[in-house]
Formats: sequence, structure tokens, C-alpha cells
Amino acid sequence: MGNLLVVGSVAFDSVKTPFGEVSNVLGGSATYFSTSASFFTQVDLIAVVGDDFPNEHLQFLSSRGINLEGLERRPGKTFRWRGEYSYQLNEAQTLETHLNVLETFRPKIPTPFTTPTALFLGNIDPELQLDVLNKVTRPSVVALDTMNFWIDSKRDALWKVLEKIDILIINDGEARALGQDPNLVQVAKTILSRGPKTVIIKRGEYGVLMFHHKGVFGAPAYPLEAVKDPTGAGDTFAGGFMGYLTASGNYSESGLRQAIIFGSVMASFNVEAFSLDRMKRLTREEIDERFRAFKHLTHFDNLS
Amino acid sequence: MGNLLVVGSVAFDSVKTPFGEVSNVLGGSATYFSTSASFFTQVDLIAVVGDDFPNEHLQFLSSRGINLEGLERRPGKTFRWRGEYSYQLNEAQTLETHLNVLETFRPKIPTPFTTPTALFLGNIDPELQLDVLNKVTRPSVVALDTMNFWIDSKRDALWKVLEKIDILIINDGEARALGQDPNLVQVAKTILSRGPKTVIIKRGEYGVLMFHHKGVFGAPAYPLEAVKDPTGAGDTFAGGFMGYLTASGNYSESGLRQAIIFGSVMASFNVEAFSLDRMKRLTREEIDERFRAFKHLTHFDNLS
Repeated sequence: MGNLLVVGSVAFDSVKTPFGEVSNVLGGSATYFSTSASFFTQVDLIAVVGDDFPNEHLQFLSSRGINLEGLERRPGKTFRWRGEYSYQLNEAQTLETHLNVLETFRPKIPTPFTTPTALFLGNIDPELQLDVLNKVTRPSVVALDTMNFWIDSKRDALWKVLEKIDILIINDGEARALGQDPNLVQVAKTILSRGPKTVIIKRGEYGVLMFHHKGVFGAPAYPLEAVKDPTGAGDTFAGGFMGYLTASGNYSESGLRQAIIFGSVMASFNVEAFSLDRMKRLTREEIDERFRAFKHLTHFDNLS
Repeated sequence: MGNLLVVGSVAFDSVKTPFGEVSNVLGGSATYFSTSASFFTQVDLIAVVGDDFPNEHLQFLSSRGINLEGLERRPGKTFRWRGEYSYQLNEAQTLETHLNVLETFRPKIPTPFTTPTALFLGNIDPELQLDVLNKVTRPSVVALDTMNFWIDSKRDALWKVLEKIDILIINDGEARALGQDPNLVQVAKTILSRGPKTVIIKRGEYGVLMFHHKGVFGAPAYPLEAVKDPTGAGDTFAGGFMGYLTASGNYSESGLRQAIIFGSVMASFNVEAFSLDRMKRLTREEIDERFRAFKHLTHFDNLS
């Protein structure tokens, strides 16, 4: 089992969906990512919180075996996000964003974290992503997430870090913006020609596509009877994907395919409840059971 | 090999997409359906055209082995549709609809057509769909397509025919309107409780979901580098699905899954060109090759 280093955000979220509403609950991309990954491998977290961040949340993350040595506590408030979803659950409407301590965040990497097996550069300024990558011994696998804000405002810096990573994990709208083409196959070709060996495109309730020189892999999302809150689904996917990959050490295309299913499994659980509530009571047995359910969901017989 | 009876529309389409424009080309749901199905089985077509319908199109349909004995020619003009797609190719904007001879269409079923192996009730007035169903010896399998116009204006008549069929093939927006719920799993449960044993939900570029008492099947659409014109994709899907099902006679859940892949294969070819241009030069070898490509697209290894 290797160790997986992640840098990203820890936040307080306030979320309203047609199925309920929560205020100032635990959230943030790195929180969802590391909790999800912790079901598979050792996770080292780099992030920042304010002095308003309660011990209860720290205890939860510790209880998942996540190493919090790189979780900086600074005077001030923790990053806060408020959003709302309509019945069309695929996209959040952001109502408020208060960066707070995240605004001046400069990731510091504790010495024991500088030789990770795998690295996930969560959605932060691409210049900071490159800085983190430069400060560690090159891991076996480096993945990166980003968003439209950086694609629009720091395109050159983003391409600079993309040239040095292995796997880009991105949603479809962001992929089209980055590749400047409406066709995802073309977009993937463009990206693959500039560095990353694998491009994973998240399509929310419609599943995932993976582009790799050995071929394309497509997986539907797991059809759920009750989706309560899609917040963190993409980060939970990435956490399951990277967690399984780090633990298995199998970076072949077939290993990547299995990792995508584990990522999809984790995301499918996460959306069943608000915040990380479903993650808090999830078991490894449930994860493997849903992996097998994905196999049944997608299987069809070959031509005889 | 059984025979597949289809009732639906034959039309002239005028279509504009970001990749080109065509005027008054061959179109219509039954045209796409029967051409696609003709690669697998014997198709008997029931539809109406005007006296402006050229022999060239009749010859093409005949060349596909489609029996045109039920294709009524009436004085007046053939049904015409004009639509446009933006880069978001999933949904057409309808600019003009001229029903013409379709307005007073009352399907007549030639005697040799009254004992079909399988029946596809294309998207027409649900009262006419029921009438056709009542006029044939109950086929082994009956599938039906519909649209929002009938869901809104003839809901009761639609449920009346739905209670008598086996397979509903519908797109996601229509499914939500019919089931009056945003969640597709709930919608499928509602529909399955009222008659059909199988519900197939088409999601355009995102693929297909099939709900059946034995479980759910999900298949992505084939990722294509160049989609020229999505017109007829849903009908081509239904034609490949029903054509394969009729030919194989395998109505088990695993047979339905294979039929869905053949439907998806046919749709993936159809969108590569305008009108039925790709269908006109398609071969059975290409179809089987893309079926195998779908297997590669969706396969992942079981847990060891």
C-alpha cells in the first residue's frame, strides 16, 4: 500500500437541494477526496483551515487514518461555500464563496510527505499546483483537477503544470473550455498530445469517459433511487479512483478502468446523503458489493 | 428470422447543424427505424407519403428488403420537418412542422402484415397505436415510442396502450414527463408497475438505460470524433434494437442487453452523416466490428 498526497480545500458548505438543506457542514474538495481515498490507502492531506474549525471534524478525518500533519491552522475563518441545486441535480448554482484563509494559502509540505507514491493536485491555482509538484520526489502517478476559473484566468500556467502530470480529471464543461472544442474526443486528443497520458472526463449523472492511448473507456453512473446532494461527487470520485490506484499499484489501462469503477462507486454513495454523512457510515464490504453491482449494470454478452 | 412490423412517419427533413445543412432529404421515424432494422431482419412498413415522394426513395427502401405494401401513397404532400442543432447536439430546435398527408393518416394493415413476430408502434397518436395493436395477432414482442405532445395531450389514451405493450422506448425528458418525477429510477418503477416489462430510456450522447425486473443495464453512447447530424438517432437505435431482437428471438434480459448494444451501434453510425447517408453505405461487417468496439469501450475486469 502506497501513500497518496493530496492538496486542496477544506471548507464549510451550506447546501440546499430539493431534498433538504444544511448549513456550515464539513465540505471542501480535499475533504471529500481524502475521506474517499482513505477507504483504500494511506492519505496525507495538505490544506488550510481557520481557527473556527472544530476538533470534531479533525477527529473524523483522523479516524479515517488521514495524516493531518500538513493541515495548517491559521488565524481567521475557514473557506465557506454556499450553493443550491434544482431538480436538475447535475450543476450547482453558487450563491456565496468566501475564500477566507484559502485566499493566501501557500501549501507547505512536511518532510515526511515529500516522497509520496501518488499525488493529487486538487483544484487550486495552477502555479501552486506546479510548486507542490516541484517540491516532492516525482511520484509514480500524478493527477490533477482544475476548474473554469483557472482555465480562463491562468491558461498558460495551467498548461505548464499539465505538461508534467499523468492524469487529468475534469468535468465535461471544463474539458470543452480547456480544449476549445465542443467534441470531447477532439478535446481529449488535444490534451493527450500535450502531456497527460490519461484524460478522465466526469459527466455527473451520466458517468465517466476515460481517454488513453490504448483506447476509450466509458462507464455510466450508478442509477440511484434517491440522490440527496451531489456536492463533492466529483472529488469523491477522484478520491476513490486515486485511492484504489495507489493501493493496487496497477497503473495499466485495465487497472485504470477498475479504479474508475471504484471512483464511481464512491461517488454513488456520497450523493445519497448531505455532506460526508454517507461516507461516515460506509463500509468496505458495501464498496465491493457496489463494484459488483456496476459489473452487472454494464455487462453484456459477446457475439457468439 | 422473424418479421418486424413498424408503423410511423416517412418525411422530408431540412436540417442545419454546425457541420452542414441539407434540404428536403429523406427522413421520418419509420424510415430511420426500418432502414436500421433491415440490417437484421425482414421489415414490413406502414406509413403514408404524398404524391411528391420520389421513386428514388422507394427504390432505396426496397433495396434494403423492406416490404412497402403498407406504404400508402395519397394525393397531397409528404410530411415535412425543419430543424436546427447548435453545438449542443443533444436537442433539436424545431423550426417548421407540416403534417400534410400525415394529418389524416389512419394506418391500414395489409393482410400479409397481420401476423408479425414483432411490432414497433412508432411515435404517432396513441389511439392509432392501440388500433394497430388490436388489428394484428399478438406479436411475441411489442415496443412503443412516444413524445411529449402525446404525453401532454393524450395521457389516458397513452396509458391505455402502454398497459398492453412489452417495451417502452423513450427519451429521458419524455420519461420524466410521463412518470411525473425527476428521478429516472422512480419513473421506471412507475411505468413498470403499469404494464411494460421493460423501459428503455434514451439519453442521446450519454447513452441508454434499460430497466427490467431482473435489473438495470447502462450503456454509454459510442464516443465519436465527428457527429454531423443527430437526426434520427433515436429511431435508428430503436430499429437496430428491435431488428436484432426479432432476428435472434432471444427476449431474455441478456438478449435485450445485446439488442441495446446493436441499437447503440446503429445510432452511432447514423449520426456520422446527414439523413440516411451513412446507412446507405453501411455493411454488416462494420456493425459487428463496432459491437466489439462497444465491448472494449465498456469492459472492466472483475475483482480478483
